[in-house]
Amino acid sequence: MTLWRADLLSDTVTRPTPAMRQAMARAEVGDDVFGEDPTVQALQERVAGLLGHEAALFTPSGSMANQLGLRLHVRPGEELLCDSLAHVVRAELGAAAAFSGITSRTWTAPRGLLDPPDPIALLQTGVGPYQVCTSLVVVENTHNFGGGTVQPLWAIRQVRAATRPRGVAMHLDGARLWNAHVASGVALAEYAAHFDTVSVCLSKGLGAPVGSLLVGSADAIAEARIWRKRFGGGMRQVGILAAAGLYALDHHVERLADDHARAQRAARAFADAAPGCVDPETVETNIVVLTTTDTGWSPAELVAAVAAKGVRGYAAGPEALRLAWHLDVDDAATDYAIDVVTTLLRARPTP
Amino acid sequence: MTLWRADLLSDTVTRPTPAMRQAMARAEVGDDVFGEDPTVQALQERVAGLLGHEAALFTPSGSMANQLGLRLHVRPGEELLCDSLAHVVRAELGAAAAFSGITSRTWTAPRGLLDPPDPIALLQTGVGPYQVCTSLVVVENTHNFGGGTVQPLWAIRQVRAATRPRGVAMHLDGARLWNAHVASGVALAEYAAHFDTVSVCLSKGLGAPVGSLLVGSADAIAEARIWRKRFGGGMRQVGILAAAGLYALDHHVERLADDHARAQRAARAFADAAPGCVDPETVETNIVVLTTTDTGWSPAELVAAVAAKGVRGYAAGPEALRLAWHLDVDDAATDYAIDVVTTLLRARPTP
Amino acid sequence: MTLWRADLLSDTVTRPTPAMRQAMARAEVGDDVFGEDPTVQALQERVAGLLGHEAALFTPSGSMANQLGLRLHVRPGEELLCDSLAHVVRAELGAAAAFSGITSRTWTAPRGLLDPPDPIALLQTGVGPYQVCTSLVVVENTHNFGGGTVQPLWAIRQVRAATRPRGVAMHLDGARLWNAHVASGVALAEYAAHFDTVSVCLSKGLGAPVGSLLVGSADAIAEARIWRKRFGGGMRQVGILAAAGLYALDHHVERLADDHARAQRAARAFADAAPGCVDPETVETNIVVLTTTDTGWSPAELVAAVAAKGVRGYAAGPEALRLAWHLDVDDAATDYAIDVVTTLLRARPTP
Amino acid sequence: MTLWRADLLSDTVTRPTPAMRQAMARAEVGDDVFGEDPTVQALQERVAGLLGHEAALFTPSGSMANQLGLRLHVRPGEELLCDSLAHVVRAELGAAAAFSGITSRTWTAPRGLLDPPDPIALLQTGVGPYQVCTSLVVVENTHNFGGGTVQPLWAIRQVRAATRPRGVAMHLDGARLWNAHVASGVALAEYAAHFDTVSVCLSKGLGAPVGSLLVGSADAIAEARIWRKRFGGGMRQVGILAAAGLYALDHHVERLADDHARAQRAARAFADAAPGCVDPETVETNIVVLTTTDTGWSPAELVAAVAAKGVRGYAAGPEALRLAWHLDVDDAATDYAIDVVTTLLRARPTP
Repeated sequence: MTLWRADLLSDTVTRPTPAMRQAMARAEVGDDVFGEDPTVQALQERVAGLLGHEAALFTPSGSMANQLGLRLHVRPGEELLCDSLAHVVRAELGAAAAFSGITSRTWTAPRGLLDPPDPIALLQTGVGPYQVCTSLVVVENTHNFGGGTVQPLWAIRQVRAATRPRGVAMHLDGARLWNAHVASGVALAEYAAHFDTVSVCLSKGLGAPVGSLLVGSADAIAEARIWRKRFGGGMRQVGILAAAGLYALDHHVERLADDHARAQRAARAFADAAPGCVDPETVETNIVVLTTTDTGWSPAELVAAVAAKGVRGYAAGPEALRLAWHLDVDDAATDYAIDVVTTLLRARPTP
Repeated sequence: MTLWRADLLSDTVTRPTPAMRQAMARAEVGDDVFGEDPTVQALQERVAGLLGHEAALFTPSGSMANQLGLRLHVRPGEELLCDSLAHVVRAELGAAAAFSGITSRTWTAPRGLLDPPDPIALLQTGVGPYQVCTSLVVVENTHNFGGGTVQPLWAIRQVRAATRPRGVAMHLDGARLWNAHVASGVALAEYAAHFDTVSVCLSKGLGAPVGSLLVGSADAIAEARIWRKRFGGGMRQVGILAAAGLYALDHHVERLADDHARAQRAARAFADAAPGCVDPETVETNIVVLTTTDTGWSPAELVAAVAAKGVRGYAAGPEALRLAWHLDVDDAATDYAIDVVTTLLRARPTP
Repeated sequence: MTLWRADLLSDTVTRPTPAMRQAMARAEVGDDVFGEDPTVQALQERVAGLLGHEAALFTPSGSMANQLGLRLHVRPGEELLCDSLAHVVRAELGAAAAFSGITSRTWTAPRGLLDPPDPIALLQTGVGPYQVCTSLVVVENTHNFGGGTVQPLWAIRQVRAATRPRGVAMHLDGARLWNAHVASGVALAEYAAHFDTVSVCLSKGLGAPVGSLLVGSADAIAEARIWRKRFGGGMRQVGILAAAGLYALDHHVERLADDHARAQRAARAFADAAPGCVDPETVETNIVVLTTTDTGWSPAELVAAVAAKGVRGYAAGPEALRLAWHLDVDDAATDYAIDVVTTLLRARPTP
Repeated sequence: MTLWRADLLSDTVTRPTPAMRQAMARAEVGDDVFGEDPTVQALQERVAGLLGHEAALFTPSGSMANQLGLRLHVRPGEELLCDSLAHVVRAELGAAAAFSGITSRTWTAPRGLLDPPDPIALLQTGVGPYQVCTSLVVVENTHNFGGGTVQPLWAIRQVRAATRPRGVAMHLDGARLWNAHVASGVALAEYAAHFDTVSVCLSKGLGAPVGSLLVGSADAIAEARIWRKRFGGGMRQVGILAAAGLYALDHHVERLADDHARAQRAARAFADAAPGCVDPETVETNIVVLTTTDTGWSPAELVAAVAAKGVRGYAAGPEALRLAWHLDVDDAATDYAIDVVTTLLRARPTP
């Protein structure tokens, strides 16, 4: 296992802290397939409460939480709408279609930023028996491939105002909703109020080892519970993992502001070193997407070059390097990463 | 059954002519599930030849021909790309996802017109094991919901040049490829050369009662044959229907020019009556889409008003009336429809 | 195309008679996707009436009629029960699972004959959220791979009595229900009364070129109509084919008794020639399954040997030859086939 | 949370021991979605080695391990065969059909015991393009709903000898293979040698909180890894759970003999108390299925009556009570449970 001086590959790579490990070791557990694990129940109630919904369900991954949410709202042959960079259509291996028979249409959104006319133009309801009916609009907040973009509450409200009277549901892919909340100051429940279901993830910025949750109405979650079993996501004494989530909610939410500040600091340094490679104004949370187009580097080359110095990044497409800040990257590691990246940006490779 | 003086609802409403009925009544037939119907075989060979591909397969509908084509190229969990108004994602009831597990992303195209950067920007190949791989781009020509738009050959070539080296297949939804051919003068085989599979329809402009075909390589069609059976599309002495298709190919292709001329004539009259409701330059084939926005009518109102006079149209979305010309609408019926529609457009309803 | 002196491959190979062709050529038609084909409507009403159900839907194949029926009753993840030789699990290419996500368990039934304890032992209802729920029992009558077996009404009643209070639906695969009716004298509607949906086929014993129907309640058929479109089974001026079905109902039902008599005559001759190869008591309708085990022939060898003499049969498994009587095999052809087969059975090949 | 004096509901209810918790708390971890968790890797290598296959993959549940295995061998529209009580068709909520489009046929097996002629009679290969092809036979060992039945090696070998030349794969649902191994003395790898893929479970008899594995060839496991992600089973720092599995392999395999002895002791006592309710000869491992038919009790009544005394069992069908022994039921708890159950069996309720 390589030891990175700054592992910015993803905010999923965090390792549980000693205190979090102690919380897990002490967790009271039961068989959650039979609904008897008290720690999972505590976590589910807590997250449902934070988001202002009736119920929540623990899942082994954010993908499963999303897929359960989509499944609830869209029957085989109906469609969901989302932007073309959304995780649910781009990075969940087509599960919504493969497993739930859900078809999708997408709009194009720079930075993944929600602009109400885009989804509204695609909505199709009451179109009779021969055309596809829109059942769901999915919003991702913060937007991962968009670069950690925080979705504006006014835009969410406007889309909701258009979908509600037409009977179209809304799902929030909130894998990084914690980051949106900390960056914007908008309450989690205020975001969640506009959606029928919301997924949140414990194993990204919050630093828990495993686990996500789907929240929604009690009925929706009861149905999701059956589908979770069908997906193979029913786990037994899973309170061990839930304990880490509870610990993270207590200790790792507000500190996301540190990740955001470090990412912002890095973005400013990168923009100084290679003007145009990133606009620091667009770095709203813990993700920096560096456009390599005019830097002389390809993303793969730059990934390799920084790796040689102990910094890990991610080639996110043909012209982008993504760096993600998290619990295990402190100020010193940030300084080091800034130094490595800016030095390389300034020393363009000879074409 | 209402008798319309001009039934412009769709070019699917044509009834077989007496000569076509005679051809059907005389057709030599066999059990096509066992590959023993000589008339179907003759039709399949003829259409494969016209399109310059190795083989063809008769299907009960254009939707099934498309769905078989999509299935061949995209495995469950992989994606297809098309524009957001494409028939395959909008008007086949989500079959690609529901039956074949195919996920989709779409681009927005005014009039459905293919602009190469749109699909090319969405292509995702070689993205590793965690992201969705693009397996297919679908082009529709002419484009139905776009208003009978003819796709430019240069644009098709450019998309093909981008997809081929990346191993992405292309399928042509050519339900109305006959119209594109007649309108543009481009040979059917020249269009088809850029695609791995092509669907064509006999029961639209060509006036046959039932039937479509999928064309492609011999291997592809052999596999499609098995999936056709699975879809429930294996029919027995279906040469009865194929005979109508052969007759239509002999007698009803070149005459599509008449439909186009009548649609053009109508479009000019509508534009005169309600400037801005349609740009006749964009009416390239047999379909006129009349934008009702500034006419004082809603599509539903206008459909009802023309119906009261014996003219049938189709409300194609919240601000559009679609009128489609075909074999059973002659010059006199066209004159009549023009008169009815322009009179109503000029006499705006009192708001 | 080979000309067979007796084509006993299947009762699907019949060619339309001249009078049937005339009926087709004269058929009044409309666009059935828009519900405007009067001949299809007449056929649908007639078949619904014959079977005592509210509504019927025309489909391009018996497989599609069955698959629509299954789909209506079983949601993804639920199960159907049927015998292990049933057409729906053995000869529809797994469509119920592939397209509708339906899982299945089967019981073993000699000759496909329904014995109530078999399905009843497998029923699973009220088993909580972690086990598969039985939603449907399928009965095939006559039973194709069982050898044209007629299902006893008492057995159907007994299964129905067990399923009804448990909320389990029943579907009748009645592709050859006409044969069961003619052989047993039981009214079509009396059979159909015990089922929620029934499929019947026009292109087998009845001699129409193409077409099947699904019958059921008005609600069920309305939903089936949408799914038919999704399956690609929506056809336009399909009254051409429906006219053949109406003709067949008028002229080709009662004559099935002739097919049964010929099959019976052949079975007795075969049993004389090779005692034990078939029990004529079990030949109830138009299908003779000849067990080759003790004849010295393999099915493939026997198929080849009779083919050399102009008789076509079907190797139905490792030890069975199937011969099916129908409209295009008269007494003379039957005599000829009997002569060919018995001569070969008596002249065992040298091992 | 009820405290049971003997919780015999299932062997899934075990809680991790203090030593196992320590192993988890100390586990070295990484992001397993990126293949960087050393503890999971160690577990995967160890289990692959124990079973004599090339590779293994950790999954959140036994259902997911099974479903991945089935997926690898059977394409949409193809079939698997298993007995009608098998977990894969009865207790995984139809996932094989719902998610992977796999159709199934089943044979009836008393006690779930594998009898080679049963699967062999159902095998269908080389049946041409219109019938379903058998791709997989599934064997469950020990057989859960059969009552912990150990499958005889000779029977497995005989089925394998029939499937191999016909290209049919075999999957072993080995959720309780550990019990079969300990009861029979047959090496794990000797069982596994006859299968293409094997699932095993850590959270049943072995007492780990969560987790199963699928083993097979390196190619198969690489493909399963991608499908695991699609199913939502990709977890991050999951070494926490894997550490429990490694601990269980070190300490909890051989002790399964104690569970078997206790179950045997209970079975003998039950048979004494209510002759015919169970044949102790058939209690081969840790599961006792008590047939309530002649006891005067219904399963639900008996479950309620023992629960009132602090003993938990499971109503497994309309005439069966299932009791499962495991790590958390020692000799004293066994004595207590025997006392409670036999007292109730002797005191038949007044009808």
